[in-house]
Parts: sequence; C-alpha cells; structure tokens
Amino acid sequence: MTIETVSTNQSYGGVQGVYRHASRETGTDMVFSVYLPPGAERGGKLPVVWYLSGLTCTHANVTEKGEFRRACAELGLIFVAPDTSPRGSDVPGDPAKAYDFGLGAGFYVDATQQPFARNYRMWSYVTEELPELLAEHFPADMSRQSILGHSMGGHGALTIALRRPQAYRAASAFAPIVAPSQVPWGIKALGGYLGDNRDAWRKHDAVALIEDGARFPDLLVDYGDADPFLKEQLRPELLAQACSDAAIPLTLRRQPGYDHSYYFISTFMDDHLRWHAARLQST
Amino acid sequence: MTIETVSTNQSYGGVQGVYRHASRETGTDMVFSVYLPPGAERGGKLPVVWYLSGLTCTHANVTEKGEFRRACAELGLIFVAPDTSPRGSDVPGDPAKAYDFGLGAGFYVDATQQPFARNYRMWSYVTEELPELLAEHFPADMSRQSILGHSMGGHGALTIALRRPQAYRAASAFAPIVAPSQVPWGIKALGGYLGDNRDAWRKHDAVALIEDGARFPDLLVDYGDADPFLKEQLRPELLAQACSDAAIPLTLRRQPGYDHSYYFISTFMDDHLRWHAARLQST
Repeated sequence: MTIETVSTNQSYGGVQGVYRHASRETGTDMVFSVYLPPGAERGGKLPVVWYLSGLTCTHANVTEKGEFRRACAELGLIFVAPDTSPRGSDVPGDPAKAYDFGLGAGFYVDATQQPFARNYRMWSYVTEELPELLAEHFPADMSRQSILGHSMGGHGALTIALRRPQAYRAASAFAPIVAPSQVPWGIKALGGYLGDNRDAWRKHDAVALIEDGARFPDLLVDYGDADPFLKEQLRPELLAQACSDAAIPLTLRRQPGYDHSYYFISTFMDDHLRWHAARLQST
Repeated sequence: MTIETVSTNQSYGGVQGVYRHASRETGTDMVFSVYLPPGAERGGKLPVVWYLSGLTCTHANVTEKGEFRRACAELGLIFVAPDTSPRGSDVPGDPAKAYDFGLGAGFYVDATQQPFARNYRMWSYVTEELPELLAEHFPADMSRQSILGHSMGGHGALTIALRRPQAYRAASAFAPIVAPSQVPWGIKALGGYLGDNRDAWRKHDAVALIEDGARFPDLLVDYGDADPFLKEQLRPELLAQACSDAAIPLTLRRQPGYDHSYYFISTFMDDHLRWHAARLQST
C-alpha cells in the first residue's frame, strides 16, 4: 500500500504529517494525520495513540486544535487522526442535507444498508486497513496501541476498545456518545447504516456491549457540564451504570463550565495522554 | 464604548472570548479575542499580553492554533489577539488581488495614502483604541502590558515596543519582518499605505528605529531555519546587527527544521509567555 505525503511540519521537536492514500475499504482516497515525536527517526518503534474525531470533523480539527503534540513529544507517543467518513463526489451522504449522517459522520461502523455499504466501512478502515498502513510506513510498535476520541469518535473509541481489548492497552473519551441505540444521533446513524434490526446495533453501542459481556481493564471519560449535547445525546450516566454493573473501573469526570468544543478537549488532552502513556509504557 | 460578545468557551480553567465592536479608528466593525485566565473573576487586575498576527490571519488563527492558554492559565496572563486589518465590503484592499496588502495585511500602520487612509489605522487601533476598550471591559492591569507577534505581527510588536517602551514591559516575536524598508513585503506595504517618502517608513521599521535611537530593555526572537520567507522577507541578521550596534540585548534563536507555521509558533509559545511573565510579574 502506498501513501502520498500531503504536508509535513516540524513541531515540538517531532514531525506533524498529513497523508493521503487510496483506501480498499472505503473505495475512496482517505486523508489522515500522524504526529511522530522526537526520537522517532532513531530506528526504534514507538507506541501509537489513535484519536477518533466527532461529527463534521476531518483529521484537521484535532491536528490543528487538539494541543496533543507537547505531551506526545514528551511521552514519546505517535498520534494518529483518521477522517470521520469516506469523502468524494461519488459518495452518498451530502453534508448539506445532514451534519449527523453521511459525509463527516461515519460513526465507525461498516454499513450494511444501501447506498452506503460500499463506502461507509469506517470500522474496518480504522481497525484493519489504517493500522496495516501505519505499520508499513511509520516506526509504530503495533503491540502498543491505545485509542481515544471525541463525541462520535468517543463512541468509536469505546466500542472499538470494548470489542478488541487485546489490541488496545488504554481507552478514553471526551464527551462520548455512550449509548447510540438510545439517543437521536445514534438511532439515526445506526438505523441508516445498519438497518432496522437492533441486534446489529448492539455491537456498536458501548453500553450494550458491556451489558452483553464486553470488558476493558479501565476507562477514562471527561465531559463538560455546559455541553449542549449532554442530556439528550451523550448521557454519560448510562455508561456509569453499565460500568458499575459490570465492575469495569471507570474514571468519569464532570468538568464544570466546559462545553463540547476543542477548547474543552485541549484542556484535558494532556491528562488523557498521560493516562494512555502509563498503560503503554511497558514493552 | 460597547462590545458585543461573539462567543465564550471555557478553557484551561479560564474563558476564551471573541468580541466585536464598532471601531472609531478603522470606521468598521472589528473582532478580537481575549483569554482570561482562571482567577480573573476574583476582582484583581491581571497583566496583559498582546499578540499581533501575520499576513492573511484574523484573531482566529492564534486563538485556535497558538496553544497559549495552558501557559496563560498557569502564569495568570490575559492574552489579547486583534485582527490584522479593517474588514468589510466597503474597505479597499481586496484579498483576492493580494494576500500581502489590504485586507488581512494592515502592517500595523496608520495609512496616509488614499484610498486607505480612512480605514487602515491599525497602529492607533492596537496602541490606543483597543487598550482603552480592554481597560473598560476586562480586569486588565494596563500598567503591566507586553507585546509579541508573528511575521507581519512580529514587525508590529517590535515597532510598537521600540516606539513606546514605557507602555510594554516585554516584547518578543516569532519569525518577524525586522526591516520592512529593505524587503519586498515591506516595500509594497509601506509604499502603499505611507507613500513614497521613505522617511515616513523609518518609524515602522524596527531596524531603522534602532538606528534612529529607539531602545528596548531586551528582546526575544525565534525563527525557523526552514522558514521559506527567511532569506528574502525576514532577514533576522539585520536585527541582530542593529541590536549589536545599539547594545540592545537580543536573544535570537535559530530553530532547526522549523517553518513559518503555527506548528512552529505553538512549539515556542510557552517559552515566550514565560519570558513575558518574568518581566510582567512585579506590580
């Protein structure tokens, strides 16, 4: 698999890159960003933190506004940010019609419904294709991966970690959608991509996965109590209850005054990366 | 003078705000951003760091990508980012025609030439009107101000500090234009705004100001040696020579591999804010 370098910029002693490749999963070109911390050029392999973004975002939002490079440079972490959906004029899902379904809103599932099934394969893209690409082109220690995300990407991070706990040593989220089967964003997306059979939804719902027996060693979740999506779409109390029932240690932090934006995310990014680094350190 | 709140977002324990007001100097609405660190609500007054942006930027570039809030929160600094020019459909200087003159490229001068003289009054806007507004609406200790900037804004920060050393306790710059009278960007801008009489340019040229006797206690300047504008437009060696001749202590740091972007600025923002804080601390 080949990749094209879109841009590289030195930052905090490392290199922030943006790359493009033709994706077998989505059938489109896909763009992603990778931060390599200082020391990556010395020949060793470094642990990898995956960051999944929220509705309407591309790789660029966290790359420009996430304030992750300082900590990644200090902690020796590779930071990877994929896009949130396939894109292109041939891809169904016009964002002018809906910000919460289609382009920019892949929800990290492999769609089974038409006309989405060919392109909307973000689950396989993020868990299989992009890791293969990363292992091939970057000094990434694929035995030390972790995952975090924001909002829809927090949903992605939690569901991916819960279904593949052997693959990720840490998982955390900023303001995640924790129970998409129970909230409007999720019902629309899972119904649209996966159809009406709600059994298929449960594999893409963190709370349902835990109810069905999925486990992870521990989880960190931050949310702001001024987040306008908190009560209708995010509902962190449902995750708290599921983790409590399943005896999964959950560090759930209510951050007073914070909203849903990157001003919130960047404030607590450092905490999350230190949480991840502590769990990625042992080789 | 009244201001309108465009947005506020909590970040690093403080509040990042964006505000709009009708400017007497530019004759247009102007937008600026202010970060208030935690503690600003307790009633005391806090020191103010002014950040002047470069060509094509608005307040938003540094506000989103500058990574200044963490240090400002820790050090108790208010951070203010003005726009780089007047804007509006009635303002001459179409940015589609030139990125380096007109809208987004005010060069921090009061224009004397038509059709720019009415609106392009960024010197008076940044040094008089906006400080008045800040003192009226924010808990700003106007006896403790400092100034920094990037590229064209580095030019603005250096020239403003050199001409008003009593008003600013610290001054620094990222990749500044140090001698606009001697480089293409500056010759175009100063000629366009101030006319052909080069004597008028010297008050807006840091190197010329120093040659003409302006002084500042000390200066900090960082630039990247991979900056594509280094040799033709920035020419930091001219500032080094002028400061050496005038015995102005200049900390001039060549940063290997860095370019002209916010990936460079954000890397060294922390250093600059600590430099400023050390000089702003005494009340």
